[in-house]
Amino acid sequence: METSKKAQKIGILTAGGDCPGLNAAIRGVGKTAIVEYGMEVLGFNAGYLGLINNDYTELKESQLSGILTLGGTILGTSREKPYKMVKKNGKTDTHKPEKIKKNYKKLGLDCIVCIGGNGTMKTASMLAKEGLNVIGIPKTIDNDVWGTDVTFGFDSAVQIATDAIDRLHTTANSHQRVMIIEIMGHHAGWLALYSGVAGGGDIILLPEIPYNIRSVCKKIENRYEDNKPYSIVVVAEGIDHPKNQTAASHLSEAIQTYTGIETRETVLGYIQRGGSPTPMDRILATRYGAHAAQCIAESNFGTMVAMKNNELTTVSLEEVGSNLRLVQPEHPLITKARKMGVSFGDEYQLIE
Amino acid sequence: METSKKAQKIGILTAGGDCPGLNAAIRGVGKTAIVEYGMEVLGFNAGYLGLINNDYTELKESQLSGILTLGGTILGTSREKPYKMVKKNGKTDTHKPEKIKKNYKKLGLDCIVCIGGNGTMKTASMLAKEGLNVIGIPKTIDNDVWGTDVTFGFDSAVQIATDAIDRLHTTANSHQRVMIIEIMGHHAGWLALYSGVAGGGDIILLPEIPYNIRSVCKKIENRYEDNKPYSIVVVAEGIDHPKNQTAASHLSEAIQTYTGIETRETVLGYIQRGGSPTPMDRILATRYGAHAAQCIAESNFGTMVAMKNNELTTVSLEEVGSNLRLVQPEHPLITKARKMGVSFGDEYQLIE
Amino acid sequence: METSKKAQKIGILTAGGDCPGLNAAIRGVGKTAIVEYGMEVLGFNAGYLGLINNDYTELKESQLSGILTLGGTILGTSREKPYKMVKKNGKTDTHKPEKIKKNYKKLGLDCIVCIGGNGTMKTASMLAKEGLNVIGIPKTIDNDVWGTDVTFGFDSAVQIATDAIDRLHTTANSHQRVMIIEIMGHHAGWLALYSGVAGGGDIILLPEIPYNIRSVCKKIENRYEDNKPYSIVVVAEGIDHPKNQTAASHLSEAIQTYTGIETRETVLGYIQRGGSPTPMDRILATRYGAHAAQCIAESNFGTMVAMKNNELTTVSLEEVGSNLRLVQPEHPLITKARKMGVSFGDEYQLIE
Amino acid sequence: METSKKAQKIGILTAGGDCPGLNAAIRGVGKTAIVEYGMEVLGFNAGYLGLINNDYTELKESQLSGILTLGGTILGTSREKPYKMVKKNGKTDTHKPEKIKKNYKKLGLDCIVCIGGNGTMKTASMLAKEGLNVIGIPKTIDNDVWGTDVTFGFDSAVQIATDAIDRLHTTANSHQRVMIIEIMGHHAGWLALYSGVAGGGDIILLPEIPYNIRSVCKKIENRYEDNKPYSIVVVAEGIDHPKNQTAASHLSEAIQTYTGIETRETVLGYIQRGGSPTPMDRILATRYGAHAAQCIAESNFGTMVAMKNNELTTVSLEEVGSNLRLVQPEHPLITKARKMGVSFGDEYQLIE
Repeated sequence: METSKKAQKIGILTAGGDCPGLNAAIRGVGKTAIVEYGMEVLGFNAGYLGLINNDYTELKESQLSGILTLGGTILGTSREKPYKMVKKNGKTDTHKPEKIKKNYKKLGLDCIVCIGGNGTMKTASMLAKEGLNVIGIPKTIDNDVWGTDVTFGFDSAVQIATDAIDRLHTTANSHQRVMIIEIMGHHAGWLALYSGVAGGGDIILLPEIPYNIRSVCKKIENRYEDNKPYSIVVVAEGIDHPKNQTAASHLSEAIQTYTGIETRETVLGYIQRGGSPTPMDRILATRYGAHAAQCIAESNFGTMVAMKNNELTTVSLEEVGSNLRLVQPEHPLITKARKMGVSFGDEYQLIE
Repeated sequence: METSKKAQKIGILTAGGDCPGLNAAIRGVGKTAIVEYGMEVLGFNAGYLGLINNDYTELKESQLSGILTLGGTILGTSREKPYKMVKKNGKTDTHKPEKIKKNYKKLGLDCIVCIGGNGTMKTASMLAKEGLNVIGIPKTIDNDVWGTDVTFGFDSAVQIATDAIDRLHTTANSHQRVMIIEIMGHHAGWLALYSGVAGGGDIILLPEIPYNIRSVCKKIENRYEDNKPYSIVVVAEGIDHPKNQTAASHLSEAIQTYTGIETRETVLGYIQRGGSPTPMDRILATRYGAHAAQCIAESNFGTMVAMKNNELTTVSLEEVGSNLRLVQPEHPLITKARKMGVSFGDEYQLIE
Repeated sequence: METSKKAQKIGILTAGGDCPGLNAAIRGVGKTAIVEYGMEVLGFNAGYLGLINNDYTELKESQLSGILTLGGTILGTSREKPYKMVKKNGKTDTHKPEKIKKNYKKLGLDCIVCIGGNGTMKTASMLAKEGLNVIGIPKTIDNDVWGTDVTFGFDSAVQIATDAIDRLHTTANSHQRVMIIEIMGHHAGWLALYSGVAGGGDIILLPEIPYNIRSVCKKIENRYEDNKPYSIVVVAEGIDHPKNQTAASHLSEAIQTYTGIETRETVLGYIQRGGSPTPMDRILATRYGAHAAQCIAESNFGTMVAMKNNELTTVSLEEVGSNLRLVQPEHPLITKARKMGVSFGDEYQLIE
Repeated sequence: METSKKAQKIGILTAGGDCPGLNAAIRGVGKTAIVEYGMEVLGFNAGYLGLINNDYTELKESQLSGILTLGGTILGTSREKPYKMVKKNGKTDTHKPEKIKKNYKKLGLDCIVCIGGNGTMKTASMLAKEGLNVIGIPKTIDNDVWGTDVTFGFDSAVQIATDAIDRLHTTANSHQRVMIIEIMGHHAGWLALYSGVAGGGDIILLPEIPYNIRSVCKKIENRYEDNKPYSIVVVAEGIDHPKNQTAASHLSEAIQTYTGIETRETVLGYIQRGGSPTPMDRILATRYGAHAAQCIAESNFGTMVAMKNNELTTVSLEEVGSNLRLVQPEHPLITKARKMGVSFGDEYQLIE
């Protein structure tokens, strides 16, 4: 696909789970493309489904006004994965990527901007291999996309989760209870770590750090003896636990059994994904979007925009693949928190 | 117990579940008692437990500064019910009320101000029958205390629940899903009703209005056909549902089964009880507290302070008992909401 | 104008200053009119200007979705007063009311719903006298419309103002300063009173209660001597002050001069008028809107919807006129606040 | 002063203007010093005044609990500059630094942690030169301390300012006005830049970029002609303007004069400095505090903790001095914003 001609017509889509800042990113791409580069911008509906079904609307500048602060995505989203082979009427359906390529050509697109998380970047990378001009923008409240220091959506989710922990604090103190709050994060514990530290959690459990339930209880009992008969336990949903329970209810039962102290659990759930983005997420999403438009103008395709050491840059989509950026157990924030008395559930060597 | 002498020494306690505004109420009682009436004020710890165990601290005016905005209660709370007869070593323990009376006399108290919900008022009423000077202040996020139009804590909980519904809206729209949110309220649906209307819920299910699952699904399907392929269902935890599930997960399963539309559920939980009170809850709690102090000065005992038709008044604690103020199915807010298209799950006559 | 026939076509307009909840009210009128009564709904742009210039758009149900939480008004607003006689090219322009009547007839309107404050109700009342079917809905952050206990917008403004006072508190304490905050309210002090009490203001100055600057300073000095070397002064913009200064800067100078204590002032300004309405304002605006639609269906014209003793009702527009509902100096909230030590600037008899 | 012995007794003070996160930083230093290193921690009251007057209290771990979320500073603050020579009874008072040194020795301090902005770091640097062990922690909502990428307090202030801009947006649109908002920042425009971009400001004026009023008006007029008859102007207080006006009122007058479009101004003021810190500011302040304690343990004195490329590090206090970190006119965020159509007031070459 020749890249020497000036890009004139681009598409945007948002894929994967909801996340604050999607509209800010769409606006960033679209306004820059229109105002600075005079491009035509198409918005594809419902993620990759829109590309497959040629379902799109043209985005004029006026439609990009007033969406900076809106949660959700004006384009809709879906978890459609066009390269996932599915049986259809007994036969494997291999036509989705073909449909995408056909629509891409038919519309005369010069680039597709794919805004999403790990799965979205993986698909974007495969489309790039097929010869399409693709640029990725990393979003996810989990902050676990490889190749960038930060994704938009994370700051907003930290705010929501921390606000919830703040609220539980007053109840924990007033009732002298152990309050357990389960935070999103199947594989990566960034959200639990940041909201746990910001919310003053006494115990923070992450998927990346195997915990020992007796160690957790010991911390709670030590606090109790130290005249602090309440504790806040912040736990990522992805920690080791029986599959027929939530992480929170598993911990709640275990703690109550071992310590005899009253416990209550809260599973924060989908409210972490919605609502107006924080100012910092608006700025980050805007910068990512604007940078993606600039990359198109510079024919820098097959890349994902990224932030490294506070500088906007790009990484190869192939490198990003579907790699996860996990929390390192020796992350400085963990080390600092441990020194202030926060437990990560792995402190005590216990002989059962 | 003579009431003609001027009250000089009073106690305050907070009992039952946590609720925004408890500290504002304590401050209202205490500041008025100290500044206006020159009383001595004792704060009993952990609800009625403090009265039973003579566990208290004197509250000076300086300790009442800066607590107006604080969530929780500086006195702590508990669900202790002194009149609940419990077997202890094989014998029924009838000594708790006796201990309370003894401590009340020993300390030379002129009145106890009991801040709490229905259970707390019931106990307060029984203590009043035993001859103690008692004044109740109604608090609960459920807004279901008999004898008053409103309890403090409700406005704050409506705010928290509505904020959560707002966040789910963006995700529902972006993903074209049915989002179900479970709101506190075992018996009374006030919180689900108010947050449901304020949050623009499409279906609102209350304990007071029996719902039909097919009617709920019909509403969702009608919206789908009307090009609104997403719905918000706001449900009180106390609606009819199997005991091995939450109300939300029961509904979620049923809706997905009947309609085939993707559903997600959120149980909001304890965050509805905590955190800084809204301005209106601060004002209400302050007024209740100040009025309780005035009632003491006027020897208006055995009563609960209340708001009726926007006026501060008192009702007999005996009348309050543990009666519940439930939502009337013909409540004007429900009637209005129905006319705007909101479903309460009981609209359609369906032949199974 | 015959009112026996069923109303079929109505207009809505929003006039006067911005206020949270306008869109919720528009939605309440529109959805009820369309869903329940099958009416056609026109939205007039920019308040009475739209009526004068026949500038309107039809509002379909889909346009009323998603606006419940939006600040501002989708119809725009203006301060246009059609009965205010203005010289135009040397002649008095009396044509505006004539134009309104002509457009009303030409469009075949059955009623105009006017959402606004005192000025808007005055105009609505005059249009009703001319024979138009008019219904008013009271909005204003000032809460000073005659004939109703409460206007929507007030609760949101109290929240914003209280949040600001909360922020000043921490700075006042940390710096040991007198912080003065000026709140909107030219004639009525409701907003300063409620946010002042909710924010724990030490001194609250209202247009309705003449203050004595020496009395204000005495309170500050008493606090200083009482080991509270900081004070929060909440002041309505409409208190007596020189016209070349803001109320806040006048007080600031005077207090610093008399007491020698460092003072800082903040004029909160327009942020009190904007942004998403609180849940309670959304509910109130929705109820008002839905009730207005019902009044149309019942041919209850020439009235303003109102809340009295927590019940929806109507009052005659003529009675409302442009009367103001001011704070009574003996308002129970003031009396209670005084007993807790709050100063209203009039306590001390001082001989100069 | 020997630094080989293990530090055992340290002091903390907070100086300069109020800023969200001060208590989080105090807690970070204190908890780490006590829990990890077993040090004794003294809190000096009212900034450098406490050091001069030997006014302090010991901080136990229990006093550091529950302050993470509190705005303000539990230690109080002041703008006292001990090296500023003042005439006292006709003589220059040179005794303050001497008093500090005397108290430092008398108390047997091993280090003083000074939390503050540029002025505070300058003083800290001078105390270090006199031989005291000093460590600085950078705080300021202005984000302009030399030697670090970010100061705590900034994220919170961006949030407050952006929230205010969001509110003005709805009013600007509804009234078709130009809304001008003045943001703190005498020398550095970071806060105006970030909140301006996050709030979707149309024109952003910074002290670092000289503006042309005709260029500002041209942008407003272009928007007007482009069917956007409203504009948001975000302006740092430190832009060039006559000294007898605020920056906002100067602009307001000029814009109204040149364009004839209605304008309104808001000076946000002290609310930008107060209230509970955002989660990210709590984390940053905690990390800075904990790192300062670690520096003490490692005898890394005469330094300021800092964040560079997302890594905690230290810089020499001497280097920091009172240098300011200003916004570069070619900052990537500015470049990106320009491409999206944001004006910085310097775009048009105008012949007057």
